[in-house]
Amino acid sequence: MNAPRAVVLLSGGLDSATLLAIARSEGLGVLALSFDYGQRHADELDAARRCATAAGAVEHLVLSLDLRAIGGSALTAEIGVPKDRAGLFDPAKREVPVTYVPARNTIFLAVALALAEARGASDIYIGVNVLDTSGYPDCRPEFIAAFESLAAVATRIGTEGVSPRIRAPLLRMTKAQIIRRGLELGVDYGLTRSCYDPDPAGRACGHCDSCRLRLAAFGEVGVPDPAPYR
Amino acid sequence: MNAPRAVVLLSGGLDSATLLAIARSEGLGVLALSFDYGQRHADELDAARRCATAAGAVEHLVLSLDLRAIGGSALTAEIGVPKDRAGLFDPAKREVPVTYVPARNTIFLAVALALAEARGASDIYIGVNVLDTSGYPDCRPEFIAAFESLAAVATRIGTEGVSPRIRAPLLRMTKAQIIRRGLELGVDYGLTRSCYDPDPAGRACGHCDSCRLRLAAFGEVGVPDPAPYR
Repeated sequence: MNAPRAVVLLSGGLDSATLLAIARSEGLGVLALSFDYGQRHADELDAARRCATAAGAVEHLVLSLDLRAIGGSALTAEIGVPKDRAGLFDPAKREVPVTYVPARNTIFLAVALALAEARGASDIYIGVNVLDTSGYPDCRPEFIAAFESLAAVATRIGTEGVSPRIRAPLLRMTKAQIIRRGLELGVDYGLTRSCYDPDPAGRACGHCDSCRLRLAAFGEVGVPDPAPYR
Repeated sequence: MNAPRAVVLLSGGLDSATLLAIARSEGLGVLALSFDYGQRHADELDAARRCATAAGAVEHLVLSLDLRAIGGSALTAEIGVPKDRAGLFDPAKREVPVTYVPARNTIFLAVALALAEARGASDIYIGVNVLDTSGYPDCRPEFIAAFESLAAVATRIGTEGVSPRIRAPLLRMTKAQIIRRGLELGVDYGLTRSCYDPDPAGRACGHCDSCRLRLAAFGEVGVPDPAPYR
């Protein structure tokens, strides 16, 4: 009999690389799932491929879905990525940033659900965390719970009483806690990429929200960030 | 101010062509959304384009998402489409057919939700109906209700208290009732295609589940089906 399997949503960033390692540490065979959704940097998908290989994934599926046709986000349309944004570290000042992609996590979880059903995976891992939840609606615990309820009525396996659990183990962890856990599990963060606006050589900008949160977290942990910066 | 808008999931079949006409009759500007998901017949997308044009859609977006990589269905993998299947018209004998595509309606509604948010649409129309509900888990009323609950927590507009309604006006209609309603609204069913296994010229097989349900319904209404059969 095969080992139990999990679908892991993998962007190639720090969070999802840690998520992969957590799923593996729980004895699950990993089916990594990434999306080429018209994000500005293909570099992110290269990072996802490196992470899936390093984690010994059973399968790594990269699906194309061009969300640029839908638009409405700095990550998929010609809207500038904000740099050195005021209020980033102050939850009270947070609002949904322009890097929000409409319904992205709903779409990603829906496809993960299809893959979980087709391959018989018992769990779906998504790397949302508390920092995201203050900015992005589809990173909140109530969203995760609502999706799990939907999954139970959406599929053939659901009607048979076995529906995948939606696992968000990073949900209540800070970025620094995530990095500490990943280092314990042997994650090589040099393989990961987080920048919203890298240069053509794949070097991070250091000034977008994602870079600043990452750099502050490595600073808190007290280890250098092994990813390249320009 | 623009007229209120609705996203309408459009396959190019009989149901979704009627759905488009219903949305238009309710005074909504229509944003039609179709998917090129690796279904066997591109012909279906041509039918969707004809229907969107005939209905005067504001926009018709065709998104590519290759569900063949996920597999698990006769519509997207090399599994034979069943013909003249016993028990088709007996709800007690129905089971989930091999033409079920894992989590397809979850994926389609998730993308429709993204489009509704990006374009400010108040409603999402999906053409599920009671005949489908006895076979496909993601055509049941409980699925539609669960998705509407998810939508309310999944998006920025949801956090602002305005979340699109999920409308399934065909849900409790038989195929014959759907055709009667469409004819009242002026739908040209000659533009639509329903067959799971058309020939290269786009002519329907007449023997798959979809053809048999369609032909029986036209028979019940007492008008000839204007679509081409081989």
